[in-house]
Amino acid sequence: MSAAPFAARLARAHEAMSITGVDALLLSLGADLPWLSGYVAMPLERLTMLVVPAAGSSEQATLVVPALEAPRVTPVPEVFSIRPWGEMEDPVEIVVSLVRRCTGKAPALAISDRAWATFLLQLERALLDATWRTASTVTAPLRAIKDAAEVEALAKAATAADRVAAALLGGEIALVQRTEREVSAELSRRLLEEGNEKVNFAIVGSGPNSASPHHEPTERVIQPREPVVCDFGGTLDGYCSDITRTVFTGEPSRELAKIYGVVAKAQAAGVIAAQVGELCSGVDGAARRVIDEAGFGEYFVHRTGHGIGLEEHEDPYMVAGNSTPLTAGNAFSVEPGIYVPDRYGVRIEDIVVATMRGPRPLNLADHALTVVEA
Amino acid sequence: MSAAPFAARLARAHEAMSITGVDALLLSLGADLPWLSGYVAMPLERLTMLVVPAAGSSEQATLVVPALEAPRVTPVPEVFSIRPWGEMEDPVEIVVSLVRRCTGKAPALAISDRAWATFLLQLERALLDATWRTASTVTAPLRAIKDAAEVEALAKAATAADRVAAALLGGEIALVQRTEREVSAELSRRLLEEGNEKVNFAIVGSGPNSASPHHEPTERVIQPREPVVCDFGGTLDGYCSDITRTVFTGEPSRELAKIYGVVAKAQAAGVIAAQVGELCSGVDGAARRVIDEAGFGEYFVHRTGHGIGLEEHEDPYMVAGNSTPLTAGNAFSVEPGIYVPDRYGVRIEDIVVATMRGPRPLNLADHALTVVEA
Repeated sequence: MSAAPFAARLARAHEAMSITGVDALLLSLGADLPWLSGYVAMPLERLTMLVVPAAGSSEQATLVVPALEAPRVTPVPEVFSIRPWGEMEDPVEIVVSLVRRCTGKAPALAISDRAWATFLLQLERALLDATWRTASTVTAPLRAIKDAAEVEALAKAATAADRVAAALLGGEIALVQRTEREVSAELSRRLLEEGNEKVNFAIVGSGPNSASPHHEPTERVIQPREPVVCDFGGTLDGYCSDITRTVFTGEPSRELAKIYGVVAKAQAAGVIAAQVGELCSGVDGAARRVIDEAGFGEYFVHRTGHGIGLEEHEDPYMVAGNSTPLTAGNAFSVEPGIYVPDRYGVRIEDIVVATMRGPRPLNLADHALTVVEA
Repeated sequence: MSAAPFAARLARAHEAMSITGVDALLLSLGADLPWLSGYVAMPLERLTMLVVPAAGSSEQATLVVPALEAPRVTPVPEVFSIRPWGEMEDPVEIVVSLVRRCTGKAPALAISDRAWATFLLQLERALLDATWRTASTVTAPLRAIKDAAEVEALAKAATAADRVAAALLGGEIALVQRTEREVSAELSRRLLEEGNEKVNFAIVGSGPNSASPHHEPTERVIQPREPVVCDFGGTLDGYCSDITRTVFTGEPSRELAKIYGVVAKAQAAGVIAAQVGELCSGVDGAARRVIDEAGFGEYFVHRTGHGIGLEEHEDPYMVAGNSTPLTAGNAFSVEPGIYVPDRYGVRIEDIVVATMRGPRPLNLADHALTVVEA
């Protein structure tokens, strides 16, 4: 990637810092750092932090990074300089001195939402006059609008996930008589084979376990005539995928087939509602209404969707009460579900991008009720 | 796992809280939570937090958890109760009210080191009279001493990693003409096949890239007659593995073979030094001395090792200046290396447990200089 997108993003960040009155951004774990610099901090005990002064400062942004991780950094000299720190140095002291150099008294600082508490506590102690907020107050509205290259990266990740979903729907992934964990491991392996650098999750919930939306795969052996909810995603070239398909290991009961139809209809309604200008709560409402009207409202126990990009979950969230209107470039999941406790559950999920020409689903794997004979 | 280990750990935590003057522990991301409860929080935007009152309180510990993740929790009623929160509730408010119920004015609170900054900032704002420190001030010394079940879990994870290392050393994993990323993906796949639920890292640094200790695998194609540093680990039944072997894709030069011998000798010296009562800095010093005396001191740019357990890196750290004496049950890596910038690097790493009968290496894969013909 050239420096151009990072320089453009820095300009947008500077503008947002000025509007929100932030004197310096302190970026560590999470996606703000790679979004602005291309560099992903290692989630370890050695601090990595990009100090970004406001636009007016004479100082450049500086990446404080463990010396032995410095070779991992691809320099972007237009955007930041690099300050490696050695095993006997204190990285918090270095960050504090960089902050002091680029801010006045009582600086307003914004730290990565996912920065570790241990570093925030040390920084608070060393910068007693500072006020603190989260970096997402600056970056989330910017990051929620994907540029063309980001949409294509998300599409590429979605297509890789689609291929794994197609193998599932096509019966290539054996289910019956295998444990949920075995199937989860196979989904993970296939995601890696499709080029993902990382598997983020591979939920497999079979039979009664399908009624738990965030089910952890267990040693339960999958039986014939069950629903199996498979929800998986990885990271490909930095961008995340996330797809859910529910398959059946034998003809479902009439009730379960009906539920599947309701979820599929709700999912389609959510996608169609995802027009530029529609509220996030409206997307949630459109999917929820279908399920409510079919009489299953009490069993749809989560929001309809979450934004996706460099992070698995990020703004915007498709949830009641979120009255942010959709903007072209918003990318998010639409994933309604019905979960009847201790009995069964169904969820269908695709990633969708809001565009001026209407919603663009990035996942194209089949939605039809699929009985996998295996 | 029965409740017994968790109840015993809670008792130890209560004792440590009393000694350190902590009124409540607030455990979220990181390993303190699973260590005390068996439950691993999902690293997502919905807050999970275990509120642990001091021993004197009439309140029990309470796990605040997103309702849709509550089914993932294995209840341990002797240790904690569960407070699921719904999509329209504010989990920070729930935590605050639990803290208020079990503490007096100006409570001393200890929060998970890896809790997200966003939650710490919200809690600080809602609990203005509280003082804050990291939970590791309470838990790290406790967690650094592994009980017998934990040592066996680490040994099992190490053995799984050893099998992947044996495949590497035995030439089963093709290297020459493949990219570092391809080899990294194969190491990851094999870790999953060996039963790991998660791959934490799979560093492959070939040729000049071997000189970067935390090298990110690239599209570089591995050539004949090169060193290849492979450093990989996963999580198996909750406990981490971490092993490094450096192999050669052809007879190394005399200089490189000499460096390999020095690193192997330094690694053995570090292991032998790992006696109960020896200082952590002494383990570092023992390995470092071998490399210094061979004239390569400036090229050993990192500490000798880190503790390991539920986390990849945790106390105790084998580093200059750490004058903590080793205790029976300490588990840590011994991983010296020599890195000649832009030319080549060598590292050898095993996990070792300090026991009353001397150091017990958990990794048993061969240390001999290995030329892989492939």
